[in-house]
Amino acid sequence: MSGTPAETRTPRRLAAIDLGSNSFHLLVANYHEEQLQVVAKLGEKVQLAAGLDEDDNLGEDAIQRALDCLARFAPFIADVPSRNLRVVGTNALRNAVNSEALIHRAEALLGHEIEIIAGREEARLIYLGAAHALADVHGKRLIVDIGGGSTEFIIGEHFEPLALESLHMGCVAYTSRFFAEGEITEKRFRQAELAALSELANIRRPYLELGWTDPVGSSGTIKAVAAVLAATGDSPDGLIHREGLMKLRKQLIKTRRLDKVAMEGLKADRARVFPAGVAILSAIFEAFDLTYMRYSDGALREGVLYDLAGRNTPEDSRLQTLGALQRRYGVETRQADNVAASARRAFDQVRDAWKLDDEQKQFLGWAAQIHEMGQAVSHSQFHRHGAYLLEHSDLPGFSRPEQRCLAFLVRAHRRKFPVKELEALPESLRERYARLARLLRVAVILNHSRPEQPVVDFTLTAEGEALRLALPDPLAEQALLVNDLQQEMALQQAAGFNFELESAPVDA
Amino acid sequence: MSGTPAETRTPRRLAAIDLGSNSFHLLVANYHEEQLQVVAKLGEKVQLAAGLDEDDNLGEDAIQRALDCLARFAPFIADVPSRNLRVVGTNALRNAVNSEALIHRAEALLGHEIEIIAGREEARLIYLGAAHALADVHGKRLIVDIGGGSTEFIIGEHFEPLALESLHMGCVAYTSRFFAEGEITEKRFRQAELAALSELANIRRPYLELGWTDPVGSSGTIKAVAAVLAATGDSPDGLIHREGLMKLRKQLIKTRRLDKVAMEGLKADRARVFPAGVAILSAIFEAFDLTYMRYSDGALREGVLYDLAGRNTPEDSRLQTLGALQRRYGVETRQADNVAASARRAFDQVRDAWKLDDEQKQFLGWAAQIHEMGQAVSHSQFHRHGAYLLEHSDLPGFSRPEQRCLAFLVRAHRRKFPVKELEALPESLRERYARLARLLRVAVILNHSRPEQPVVDFTLTAEGEALRLALPDPLAEQALLVNDLQQEMALQQAAGFNFELESAPVDA
Repeated sequence: MSGTPAETRTPRRLAAIDLGSNSFHLLVANYHEEQLQVVAKLGEKVQLAAGLDEDDNLGEDAIQRALDCLARFAPFIADVPSRNLRVVGTNALRNAVNSEALIHRAEALLGHEIEIIAGREEARLIYLGAAHALADVHGKRLIVDIGGGSTEFIIGEHFEPLALESLHMGCVAYTSRFFAEGEITEKRFRQAELAALSELANIRRPYLELGWTDPVGSSGTIKAVAAVLAATGDSPDGLIHREGLMKLRKQLIKTRRLDKVAMEGLKADRARVFPAGVAILSAIFEAFDLTYMRYSDGALREGVLYDLAGRNTPEDSRLQTLGALQRRYGVETRQADNVAASARRAFDQVRDAWKLDDEQKQFLGWAAQIHEMGQAVSHSQFHRHGAYLLEHSDLPGFSRPEQRCLAFLVRAHRRKFPVKELEALPESLRERYARLARLLRVAVILNHSRPEQPVVDFTLTAEGEALRLALPDPLAEQALLVNDLQQEMALQQAAGFNFELESAPVDA
Repeated sequence: MSGTPAETRTPRRLAAIDLGSNSFHLLVANYHEEQLQVVAKLGEKVQLAAGLDEDDNLGEDAIQRALDCLARFAPFIADVPSRNLRVVGTNALRNAVNSEALIHRAEALLGHEIEIIAGREEARLIYLGAAHALADVHGKRLIVDIGGGSTEFIIGEHFEPLALESLHMGCVAYTSRFFAEGEITEKRFRQAELAALSELANIRRPYLELGWTDPVGSSGTIKAVAAVLAATGDSPDGLIHREGLMKLRKQLIKTRRLDKVAMEGLKADRARVFPAGVAILSAIFEAFDLTYMRYSDGALREGVLYDLAGRNTPEDSRLQTLGALQRRYGVETRQADNVAASARRAFDQVRDAWKLDDEQKQFLGWAAQIHEMGQAVSHSQFHRHGAYLLEHSDLPGFSRPEQRCLAFLVRAHRRKFPVKELEALPESLRERYARLARLLRVAVILNHSRPEQPVVDFTLTAEGEALRLALPDPLAEQALLVNDLQQEMALQQAAGFNFELESAPVDA
């Protein structure tokens, strides 16, 4: 809907903020001829994951550090159009039970929605960023990104990820878990490595069987290892070799205390989480039997920008995801297309009255494409099964909040209007999603008899929240449809919505 | 595991009890050379669905009617081996919120488990029964079974169902909904038909597109219609013709009151629910544009017996279902097979101490086959997603209680031992399923590194609920596995189970 020819020729200003478990990053760039031209790039070690207590509650200190950092980022995104900006949260925010406490205030501060993304989605975006940063060679590559709370592993070829995983291990989380008292011993170091090896055992063999020719690391930990080895002369070719890494490991254990860690090439604010990061990297070398690894720039934030750039093109990952869902769950596409067509027509008819925009129209169409997917699980309560799958699945290209909204529309498309589920949505979205759900319901009813062509011969009008549907033929001739619509009136009424039916004057 | 050659040659005594919404049925038969030889066949109009109040609570009267009937059935199944008997409940029990109130007492009375089956599973079994009763002709057939609470529609060819649906409409439920005050009017009759047409709209077009050459009806309503039309001479060829049905419809409306319905060929205990049944049948004729329908014996109870007869053969519908789940959710079968092999080995080692039987071993192997299926949804919490899908999916061949147990094993196979979910299982199953879950967990850990061959070189011993695992090699050489097993000890301990690890003496 956006992405007109004019826009594709002039550079688009794109921006990403990555709320990582260790660092927050800002990247602003112009996208021009399939390349990013960096306008601004900032990073701060907010150490959000370190602010999680035993019950995964984010402390007030950490929240304040995060907000202070975002206040510094905010001016850089002030003139970026909203649809060209994404703010994504990863592991620490996925885990924090009180993430809403930060998110609400941060959204108010930035004037933009924050999306918590799933681990595999993070891995996909990291690969997208890394693949653009690397020369496009033949052969598969392994990308490893050690974060503060999770580590992503991707095998891919060209721009295509072949395996995506996100494991629960990161330099901040492992510092808390294995080095909480500040001591570094051989035993603690080995415990951290064993824990990482245990996580890695899940993916080791399938990854080795898939294979790669080029092992690449991104992210701060690996950058720091490369920098330290370069400073000590243990990396004449710029690569991280196993021997250099083992030497570094020995040296860290000798240091004995976290607060004594200081090395040439190592930034002071990285020092405390460095031993845990090295332990994880050492476990990765062990599990995958690596002899070397190359560091490369280009990670999550770059991936977010390339993903934004690809939206509303045939490469839009979200369209590919919807297609994959339709195939896996055997959705009858003719019916899905028909309901989508009727829903878009209904949308256009009330668009002005309800002040809806193109993005919402797109979203409604997507919900229609997959509203029947739960039938593959069971016909009974299939709207619930579809909603469960949409809420919990890894859906490339979609953020968690988007998944929740799609899940709500599918949940709400038939039977009782789910008032409780509506109230569970963020308050700012409720009115909009109640409206979209009601449009989808009408579209589903109009196509109840599963016609060959979509039903578009109707007039829907909105006055406030009241909807009125006019049908062209006399109602008496459409007993079945009227029966359905009368039931629907009662269901909408029960949820506090007014929905009326009339027969339009017959055409002269 | 059962089904030895000897058993397949001598007739097997099989029995089914069908706790329908309108009638309960008993069928006892010998299965010999792929045929059923009926030993006993009983039916009683218990009218369970009529005993449901507005909140879907089963009244004490209805429960007593049900128990009285089962007390009369019980002597007929006394000498049927438990594995050759199934007692299945359908719509009324699916819907009753207090179904447990009846089930517990009925299970005690019969000394056998009652399985509530899903609508599509009911449809599958009905088709199996009907397909065996009908001559095996070429071409597709439509089977319609109007029950007390639901109506099943199946299109199939030979013994293969091609479309299975169960709709929420039945002669008892519709009598309560449209004829509660005992009056029969044209308007009420049409309302019942419209409600049925609205249900039918969901399947009408796909069924018409699939097509059939032979429309067949089973169940009491259709049998009664055929009998009445035969008695009035409106069915010279034994078929239910549209004209005859319309004449019957008119006649019922003329009768004006349910308590006045009496016709030649109509049993007195069918009369009250007959108008609603005729309204549903009339809607089916309308939706599918039928000119005639043939009545055939052979329904749910026969299907249950043929399904029992096919168990533990390559045609076992449960094996086919597990294979279909593996395919849909892309389960890595090598890993599934390896875990299953380790689990069966662990099972054999503790089988005597824990008094486990072949059926439980089979069940454990099945859970192993699909324990990773939730990964297709998301790696995060995949044991929960697998459990959700197993609990809610239509799984041909499995009863609802079996699905719940499979779901529990998958839910319990990793991470914290789910004590709350264990306690949600029926008390009689808890000890057994806690044990099976612990065996599965050990098998999963032993195969954590996803080896090419299953890990079978271990010794597991049970003493009371305490488990002790001995590994052949010195523990020091298996740091990663020991790390995993130590975590598992802590997790089992937290759930109140003792699990210990030792290194077996090295072989001389």
